[in-house]
Amino acid sequence: MSIAESAEVSAALHPGVVDLMGVLAYGELSAFDRLAQDSRTAPTLDGRAALASMAAAEMGHYHQVEAFLAERGVAVQEAMQPFIAPLDSYHEFTAPDSWLESLVKAYVGDGLAADFYREIAGALDEETGATVRAVLADTGYSAFAEQEVSAACAADPALAARLTLWGRRLLGEAVTQAQHVVARRDDLAELLITSTSGLVGFAQLFRRLQNQHTRRMRAMGLG
Amino acid sequence: MSIAESAEVSAALHPGVVDLMGVLAYGELSAFDRLAQDSRTAPTLDGRAALASMAAAEMGHYHQVEAFLAERGVAVQEAMQPFIAPLDSYHEFTAPDSWLESLVKAYVGDGLAADFYREIAGALDEETGATVRAVLADTGYSAFAEQEVSAACAADPALAARLTLWGRRLLGEAVTQAQHVVARRDDLAELLITSTSGLVGFAQLFRRLQNQHTRRMRAMGLG
Repeated sequence: MSIAESAEVSAALHPGVVDLMGVLAYGELSAFDRLAQDSRTAPTLDGRAALASMAAAEMGHYHQVEAFLAERGVAVQEAMQPFIAPLDSYHEFTAPDSWLESLVKAYVGDGLAADFYREIAGALDEETGATVRAVLADTGYSAFAEQEVSAACAADPALAARLTLWGRRLLGEAVTQAQHVVARRDDLAELLITSTSGLVGFAQLFRRLQNQHTRRMRAMGLG
Repeated sequence: MSIAESAEVSAALHPGVVDLMGVLAYGELSAFDRLAQDSRTAPTLDGRAALASMAAAEMGHYHQVEAFLAERGVAVQEAMQPFIAPLDSYHEFTAPDSWLESLVKAYVGDGLAADFYREIAGALDEETGATVRAVLADTGYSAFAEQEVSAACAADPALAARLTLWGRRLLGEAVTQAQHVVARRDDLAELLITSTSGLVGFAQLFRRLQNQHTRRMRAMGLG
């Protein structure tokens, strides 16, 4: 069954919403993968358990999206398909080289995704918006990343400078991959333009995301 | 703080129980790790999500053990320490070479651990036993492993023979590592002997575990 066919099963679901849920679901599944992998590089059992717990929380969210789509006759596997390549590329191009890079990536990536979806959620119908917001509830491990990274950077300005560049690269790569996705998915692009009241709103959205990214970097003692 | 010191914090907790909870917790954490790693070799998104979900469920259980110990003044990190080496060895010596080996390992390993702890749970005090039982509730993915493995083996008797040997190796390696653990942890050994009413009971326990293992292998069309 193609995406178009599976979307037809549900009369209520805009194909742009199927896309939005698909990219959200694969975002969770690939974040699980990345966090689980990174948890193995943790210098302490505490750190390992913290990242493993973040990974586990992503799967909880994945199941919420899966259930939302299933109730509307859409298979999550089909909805995710178009987003596997761009999200895998993002993770491939931003493979962390150290435990602290992993933490910054987990924190920045989760925060960026949450900000983005929260902006869109307001323009979606009530149920869809509620699902998106529930899925993006803080997994509760932000404080851990903030503490670990600030503590390490306070003692080492060169490290802080390197991690600041790393944070910028993450944002740049995320924007690049997001642009690829939107350029190829007309229904999703239309949904985003509508949700943000046109192209001007879209530009403002990106500025807001950038500001929130900067705030997040500062919370870790970076930027 | 050493294990002995952290156990002293809680007047109520037998050091053998601290050990039992420690090995249980590290079992969950290392199973998370192994399942997450194996999920990457899945031939389908369905399979990948199934193993990732099993991994996530292990972390839920890990947190239950962590909370149980924390309420009694014991840090889970301390309790896990003595069991890192033997459990890591088990996983190192039984690294799956294929997706189906991963599934058999996940199914057999989880089942064996659950059977073992369930046998012990009956002899523990009520609260400890209840925690152990809650932690070992089926993660709900056994049916997936059974279906995938039986379907693959029905069409390929040589594969079934190879996976049968694999299952035997898993059991052998688990028993070997368990013996190492019990030989080095007097309090845990004492708890086990008491729980099973002496050495005869202990031998019977191992026979029951072996029988349940055989039944589990048959459910996958193996052995």
